[in-house]
Amino acid sequence: MARAVTGIQPSGQVHVGNWLGMIRPALTIAQDWESYFFVADWHALTSHPEPDVLRRATREIAATWLALGLDADRSTLFRQSDVPEVQELAWILGTVIPAGLLERGHAVKAARDGGREVNASTWWYPTLMAADILAYGADVVPVGADQKQHVEMARDMAIKINVRFGDDALVVPEPRVRAEVGVVPGTDGRKMSKSYGNVVPLFDTPKRTRKAIMGIVTDSLGVDEPKDPDRCTVFQLYKLLATDDEVAEMDADLRRGRGYGYGHAKEALALVMERTVAMPRECYTEWLASPARLDEILDAGARRARVAAAATLDRLRERVGLHALRRGSLG
Amino acid sequence: MARAVTGIQPSGQVHVGNWLGMIRPALTIAQDWESYFFVADWHALTSHPEPDVLRRATREIAATWLALGLDADRSTLFRQSDVPEVQELAWILGTVIPAGLLERGHAVKAARDGGREVNASTWWYPTLMAADILAYGADVVPVGADQKQHVEMARDMAIKINVRFGDDALVVPEPRVRAEVGVVPGTDGRKMSKSYGNVVPLFDTPKRTRKAIMGIVTDSLGVDEPKDPDRCTVFQLYKLLATDDEVAEMDADLRRGRGYGYGHAKEALALVMERTVAMPRECYTEWLASPARLDEILDAGARRARVAAAATLDRLRERVGLHALRRGSLG
Repeated sequence: MARAVTGIQPSGQVHVGNWLGMIRPALTIAQDWESYFFVADWHALTSHPEPDVLRRATREIAATWLALGLDADRSTLFRQSDVPEVQELAWILGTVIPAGLLERGHAVKAARDGGREVNASTWWYPTLMAADILAYGADVVPVGADQKQHVEMARDMAIKINVRFGDDALVVPEPRVRAEVGVVPGTDGRKMSKSYGNVVPLFDTPKRTRKAIMGIVTDSLGVDEPKDPDRCTVFQLYKLLATDDEVAEMDADLRRGRGYGYGHAKEALALVMERTVAMPRECYTEWLASPARLDEILDAGARRARVAAAATLDRLRERVGLHALRRGSLG
Repeated sequence: MARAVTGIQPSGQVHVGNWLGMIRPALTIAQDWESYFFVADWHALTSHPEPDVLRRATREIAATWLALGLDADRSTLFRQSDVPEVQELAWILGTVIPAGLLERGHAVKAARDGGREVNASTWWYPTLMAADILAYGADVVPVGADQKQHVEMARDMAIKINVRFGDDALVVPEPRVRAEVGVVPGTDGRKMSKSYGNVVPLFDTPKRTRKAIMGIVTDSLGVDEPKDPDRCTVFQLYKLLATDDEVAEMDADLRRGRGYGYGHAKEALALVMERTVAMPRECYTEWLASPARLDEILDAGARRARVAAAATLDRLRERVGLHALRRGSLG
């Protein structure tokens, strides 16, 4: 079966943008592909979280995936840092690319734009990200349009390795951008992102979630004026959650105007949101209340992930001239 | 017992400079310290060796250490790449130092000076080198004067980690520069180095070793003129190998002149060299003829090294907020 890999960083509250833009499409792919989902705890270290916050956030991400329907028997859910093979792969990848290439990484750019000092690991990160993809022999990587660059870099590295060490040394992955989702807008109409402070939380209290929805920025057309659904952030989010009939209805209501204002649309969005997340939220809370069970699933995932990564590394080590590693029993 | 760590890169033939400047002083230290000696095969990948050449060179380095007297029961001899924990430590170290710091690494400078493209791993290398030192909790690192920088960088990283995560997170190492050895001169009087093409091989045939010695550059003073031993490369090397009496004799011979030319000094050096390396060369050849025995020693070393590195990483992972890793049995 073909393979897919997806990672998510444990930093801050998971929001609707993460879910609709990334988690949901990835779970759809997981129905047909052998899928690897990892919590990027190594990556999180580049922004210096408090240790306990990182540990909690790692569990929260895992609980989120499970609550949203990840089948841990069928897919492999694990912590990035449970697979040491990945760090070695990053090293080997780094030997075949020019140092200057890493300057172009998103994380370096984001840190610089934010006036933050770029630490060495942030700079090195594209090689680790590529290793996260290539270690598991993934054929596809489901990404948002803005993350396509990471997969392109991983492709380049895999191709360079294969040119040097033989065609089947690494699987060359393809990005899979979900065109039909595109960018999930936040409350200010820009891409929903923690760094913009425009998120609708996913598993927060119904009250706070509703409050975020009520805060969505709209234009100032009055309740009786006709409105353009395509320029309405509320409608864009609604489309991602409601049934086709509901979407058609709001579309007509907005265009008509006459007694249907943005407030009505927001209420409708809040309702459909609560309807959609109520059950998963309950699951999420249950998972977080059983950390031992959660850790068991992650540990089992790590064992499977390591078997896949070790197969890649064993092959690659042989090709580059390293000695066959005695790994002992994995995990 | 306090700990020392030393690495040597498997690239090209081991020469007299490696031995006198690094291996011999390290073996002296190993009599009193718990010592970790590794063959830096990961590092070698940055210069893209042919895979079979790298595998052979790795065994040659190991055979060299053993032939020169390393006691594998007492000291730990292993391949760098057999300890995956080290790559993870490099990643964690990289999160606490600014990316710009790595620009100052020797390897980056050497590559640029040589007009070579700097690959990403060469740039990242100081973090891996620091991890090689810090993973084993080394108190001292025996180095040549020109390699002090690496240990200073490792010290800085350890201190930064300890400030953030608690004083005893990592052992802060000290460089130990063997002042009495200093720089071992090559045949042209500059530091003996493969990259200068001025080496005297260590375990080559007596004929080729002699030829290298005969090629040592001297000034043009005639056989009867008095010569300054302090400005004579032959004498500098002789001092490192001959007995005190022999050294005093050559010193007197050179200063006197009158029938004692550089040719005589070279013959004396060639003799004392052959006398010193004849036995080790035989051992070296024997070790290389039993690769399985050699690998057994390296595998056993790897197991011990991993136990030490895993202890460091388990402690550090807990401190930074990663989950306790299930390592399975090591090696």
